[in-house]
Amino acid sequence: MSAKVRIGIVGYGNLGKGVHKAIQQNPDMELVAVFTRREPETMKSASGEVLFETISRAEVYLDRIDVMILCGGSATDLPEQTPAMASMFSTVDSFDTHAKIPEFYEQVDAAAKSGGHVSVISTGWDPGLFSLNRLLAESILPEGTTNTFWGKGVSQGHSDAIRRVAGVKAGVQYTVPVEAVIDQIRGGETPELSTRDKHLRQCFVVAEEGADQQAIRETIVSMPNYFSDYDTTVEFISEEELARDHSGMPHGGFVIRSGETGDGTRQLVEFSLKLDSNPEFTASVLVAYARSAYRLKQQGQSGARTVFDIPFGLLSPKSPEELRKELL
Amino acid sequence: MSAKVRIGIVGYGNLGKGVHKAIQQNPDMELVAVFTRREPETMKSASGEVLFETISRAEVYLDRIDVMILCGGSATDLPEQTPAMASMFSTVDSFDTHAKIPEFYEQVDAAAKSGGHVSVISTGWDPGLFSLNRLLAESILPEGTTNTFWGKGVSQGHSDAIRRVAGVKAGVQYTVPVEAVIDQIRGGETPELSTRDKHLRQCFVVAEEGADQQAIRETIVSMPNYFSDYDTTVEFISEEELARDHSGMPHGGFVIRSGETGDGTRQLVEFSLKLDSNPEFTASVLVAYARSAYRLKQQGQSGARTVFDIPFGLLSPKSPEELRKELL
Repeated sequence: MSAKVRIGIVGYGNLGKGVHKAIQQNPDMELVAVFTRREPETMKSASGEVLFETISRAEVYLDRIDVMILCGGSATDLPEQTPAMASMFSTVDSFDTHAKIPEFYEQVDAAAKSGGHVSVISTGWDPGLFSLNRLLAESILPEGTTNTFWGKGVSQGHSDAIRRVAGVKAGVQYTVPVEAVIDQIRGGETPELSTRDKHLRQCFVVAEEGADQQAIRETIVSMPNYFSDYDTTVEFISEEELARDHSGMPHGGFVIRSGETGDGTRQLVEFSLKLDSNPEFTASVLVAYARSAYRLKQQGQSGARTVFDIPFGLLSPKSPEELRKELL
Repeated sequence: MSAKVRIGIVGYGNLGKGVHKAIQQNPDMELVAVFTRREPETMKSASGEVLFETISRAEVYLDRIDVMILCGGSATDLPEQTPAMASMFSTVDSFDTHAKIPEFYEQVDAAAKSGGHVSVISTGWDPGLFSLNRLLAESILPEGTTNTFWGKGVSQGHSDAIRRVAGVKAGVQYTVPVEAVIDQIRGGETPELSTRDKHLRQCFVVAEEGADQQAIRETIVSMPNYFSDYDTTVEFISEEELARDHSGMPHGGFVIRSGETGDGTRQLVEFSLKLDSNPEFTASVLVAYARSAYRLKQQGQSGARTVFDIPFGLLSPKSPEELRKELL
């Protein structure tokens, strides 16, 4: 057996902790260190012993880490961290600001090429596995309609938006796909749908004592970008209820393409996820793509890659011969 | 826009006709000729004008065809045709005798390399898209169980087996997944399942006049390999009913992986197809992979490839930039 793929984790929130646990499920990988902006000595491991390092010491690990898995946020962390790390290590990230992906790709590509490394950007499940299925389905069925549904699941961005409303102590927002619409599509119909038609938004809010609940509700449902374009429900609950019923991070969704071949023959392709933990699943995707980054670099490649550029065979620890024999 | 991908079709049964129609949905491709073992002048086009050629004249087209799509059967056609064609053209086929894939791969690989071409073997939906999803799901969720369900759909091999029974005039066999088992898995359970537990076999049989229906039924349900390991139903119908209710070729199925991440968190990945025409859908997959064979050869590659080796980006007529912008 060849040497293990040596992994570093940058950032140790829910996603970084998920990556830590996912590495332990993959015997061909080992975690070398977790890099953090916090004080390393204040950090607590999510699973067994681990070395914490301050992020500025990453370059000390140039020869000791094959792939850095970047677990920061897309708003401010990754635009800075991925290019910086990509010049020193192969990297994987889950950059998900769709509109900025082309620009991000160019920056990371230049950095990765400068260091001779491979950087897989924007992986996870959307962007990531859902993107792959959108591409696959439209390539096979050029005449058709693709729909993506998200949920039922917690949207971190929308939950944050709720919590910024005056009088709100805590809250969580679920994106919920409209079942009737999914059934319509599965039944072979191809309705024209806006995102609003396809999803509801459910908010569970803990109000500050004495806060005006009606005003909070109004502020939420009319919030532009986040809620005003959706059917939004707001339910007020206690802190205890929030902790008891809403502390998980479930998510999931569907990519469905309804297409036609030949003389109007209906064909339906669907990919779906039902996740009890969104960050742990995303982390598992990042780890599989870390394996591919390592192998591409071993092949002598360099530069940025997306899920569209990477054959699935490189995601598995199995050899091409094993894959053909066991899984084809 | 670059030149079109020039396609040849070998074999003009249901699959070959499906490929013909699929090419017409892809403006970056053109059909040059259909090669057949029958008399070319006796052939009828499934869709518009087309040139029929006798298969022995394939080599005349060396410089006029980029990719040959091989639409013969796996039992006797492809083991002979793919290696022969692979030395002259890039090829795509749907070779689906799972146990013989490793050997077939080696033969085709040698032939393709000898001619400097690329041969994509064993594509379609199973082997093909289902294989991809088995590989993806187990790579992301190393701890888990994958189940593949087929149907409801017509199995050509099993229908042929019925028709060989003495006293049977015509017949069709549907493979039917057991819904209760699928629901169990979707609900997060991971039962140990044999293929028998997961599928029923429904046979619709037209008996010869005066044939012993009870004997036919017994012969079918006890047939080894095909039916004896399954719960099999046999229903006798008239020729008119067969033509009216069973002339389509629907199929489909599911690949479901139920896995665990972290400390026992349940994660479910599912890919499903619901096809009104199995051969037309398989044909559409072959055509998308023909595009990838063409591109890989343009990159200077040669040899046999499976779906595991080919990034999805090569299946689409869109550029990498467009894909990142529109579909990621």
